[in-house]
Amino acid sequence: MKKTQLYLPMGFRFGGVSAGIKQSGKPDVALVVADHPCTAAGMFTTNKIVGPAVVIDREHVKNGRAQAVLINSGNANTCTGRKGERNALVVCRDIARRFDIRPDDVLLCSTGIIGHQLPMRKLSAGIADVAGKLRASAAGAMRFSKAILTTDLRPKTANAKVKLPGGSVSLFGCAKGSGMIAPNMATMLAFILTDANISAAVLRRVFREVVGQTFNKVSVDSHMSTSDTALILASGRAGNAPLQRGGKAMKSFRAALTDMCDSLARQIAADGEGATCLVTVQVKGAATPEDARRAVCAIVDSPLIRCAFHGSDPNWGRIVSAVGYCGARLKPEKLTCRIAGVKVFTGGRPVNFDPRRLSQRMKQPAWTVEVELNVGRCDDFRYTCDLSGEYVSINADYHT
Amino acid sequence: MKKTQLYLPMGFRFGGVSAGIKQSGKPDVALVVADHPCTAAGMFTTNKIVGPAVVIDREHVKNGRAQAVLINSGNANTCTGRKGERNALVVCRDIARRFDIRPDDVLLCSTGIIGHQLPMRKLSAGIADVAGKLRASAAGAMRFSKAILTTDLRPKTANAKVKLPGGSVSLFGCAKGSGMIAPNMATMLAFILTDANISAAVLRRVFREVVGQTFNKVSVDSHMSTSDTALILASGRAGNAPLQRGGKAMKSFRAALTDMCDSLARQIAADGEGATCLVTVQVKGAATPEDARRAVCAIVDSPLIRCAFHGSDPNWGRIVSAVGYCGARLKPEKLTCRIAGVKVFTGGRPVNFDPRRLSQRMKQPAWTVEVELNVGRCDDFRYTCDLSGEYVSINADYHT
Repeated sequence: MKKTQLYLPMGFRFGGVSAGIKQSGKPDVALVVADHPCTAAGMFTTNKIVGPAVVIDREHVKNGRAQAVLINSGNANTCTGRKGERNALVVCRDIARRFDIRPDDVLLCSTGIIGHQLPMRKLSAGIADVAGKLRASAAGAMRFSKAILTTDLRPKTANAKVKLPGGSVSLFGCAKGSGMIAPNMATMLAFILTDANISAAVLRRVFREVVGQTFNKVSVDSHMSTSDTALILASGRAGNAPLQRGGKAMKSFRAALTDMCDSLARQIAADGEGATCLVTVQVKGAATPEDARRAVCAIVDSPLIRCAFHGSDPNWGRIVSAVGYCGARLKPEKLTCRIAGVKVFTGGRPVNFDPRRLSQRMKQPAWTVEVELNVGRCDDFRYTCDLSGEYVSINADYHT
Repeated sequence: MKKTQLYLPMGFRFGGVSAGIKQSGKPDVALVVADHPCTAAGMFTTNKIVGPAVVIDREHVKNGRAQAVLINSGNANTCTGRKGERNALVVCRDIARRFDIRPDDVLLCSTGIIGHQLPMRKLSAGIADVAGKLRASAAGAMRFSKAILTTDLRPKTANAKVKLPGGSVSLFGCAKGSGMIAPNMATMLAFILTDANISAAVLRRVFREVVGQTFNKVSVDSHMSTSDTALILASGRAGNAPLQRGGKAMKSFRAALTDMCDSLARQIAADGEGATCLVTVQVKGAATPEDARRAVCAIVDSPLIRCAFHGSDPNWGRIVSAVGYCGARLKPEKLTCRIAGVKVFTGGRPVNFDPRRLSQRMKQPAWTVEVELNVGRCDDFRYTCDLSGEYVSINADYHT
């Protein structure tokens, strides 16, 4: 992101520092603090095993208000018992005291290794450090975006400005992904900051809808994490007339928010562990929404198919057979499959195509698999990536 | 298998030859013919996309009778339209004519690449060749076992002899697996031959039960094939009193059949594509059978967990988090997890263990993951293997 392109929402200061939680010495403590309490909403993992940060955030965001978000990477503080819970509360109180805000206006996210206690001395020192370095600047936002990462290769950010009656609204978002990413929940971690004037109830509703169509459509490895959290804070500083459901202004705001979250979702899939390409899998014409979901999940959950993606192999047989076993209503003779825009299967039979040319297309950084069931009107899609030997290396060598 | 150990069931002749269907020149046509019509039963894939061989076998085995099974490897004859159907029928008629048996007593299995027409000249020549080389010998049975393989590294055979009133019964079985192997159906291909005297109805029932507890418990890569078939033929030549449901003789027969199929199932998982170890995943104490199934499938379907298996990494966090998202009823504080016999997680917290020693245990060729939910009495298990870079190579480089 070029500095000149960044529309920083008013009312937030950002920071990110290295506190030594990660052995690599990379940034691992991120903090964003709003000048005043914001309206806020959150979406969380549906995993039944969660860390104390998820429990705390669910509770703290209930009243639709928040003022600060502290993220530590390198340690998920999950499966750490009572001590882990106490440590999480200590962090919230620390932030509250430093900025003179209410403890329940502090949100907390921890991501990284499971089952280890937070290194509280390092973390406290990191909080003291980052608290003194908060900036309402693009550089501050970038430092924040980098300090939330784990095995991600690239920071993931998105930005938008929307003209609304009464004032222009800016949005800034960032996310981390990489591994343990599966659909049907909020993604690993995503943070959206905006200066829009919007009530908590309206914000919660629009955020849930947008997350469902963006972050919940990502699957790197079908494995749902214990820390998935997506948060949005709105400072109201833009001075726009309060956003209401159904209005024209809301349409513009929702479109901008959707574009941003969609961009972050695609960035997460493209930077999946070991990934070399972003593949959008679309299923069309299913009999029911559940059938569409089943078909698209059978495709993105198949390691066999994702290996073919990695080999730039237009292996329609694997795709068609996955649709065959997913349980969706199906007439094989009505099935059509396209890979990277090329029709490879239709009417129950493969189509003659030039496999070398198609394989070249599959070497692009982003392309699409489309499956038309042609038995109804329901569609679904997922963002995924290829399964590489690099994924195996990363995850076979990672130490508990 | 040593020759001296083989109890060959009476009444069958076996063969396997190279017909050039596989580019590698490895054996690719297998045939077993019984001297007289046998009682027979079959279990098939639940995939909605199937090859004509599966359609034909379902039809031919309905009457509980069969006399010959022809298998070609290297070509699945799936998604090949009318021409593929006609070719499959031509093969059945060819076998029937050569051995003067009824066409509907011929069973057919095709395994290999999807979407290519069978090379009928090569296949017909292969059938002529193998028909002249059938032997009622261990060598013949081994040639048969080898000619059904695709990417398998090793032939998979099992053998048993059971003393029953009126005569000893022998069983011989072989299977192929390797890729596109997922639970809840018959496995890729498995053939059991026995000289037991047993009615078709009784055979069908016991075979369905045994397959459900053995082959259906294997998952190499969560991807269900279009050709999965398990067949059993009983020649009745052993002279035992007809096997009846519920009797003591049936108990012995069922135990021997279960042991054999269980052995073949474990061989399939151990020889999964790229596999270096066989992992038995057991879930105990679930609230319902469906909960047990969900938990065990969430574990074996996670590439993240199977990468940890490959790295001999006792990564209980991944296992526990998969159980957390599977949807099963769960009390985190009641959860216990053991890896290779070592307790690593209990009461919601990790246990202190020596990761190096445990990692050494995980380098053994076979070990177990046990998860106790402790909220009910339902158990389930799966045989699976590690996910290696070799799996990715095999499946990224395989050409459509």
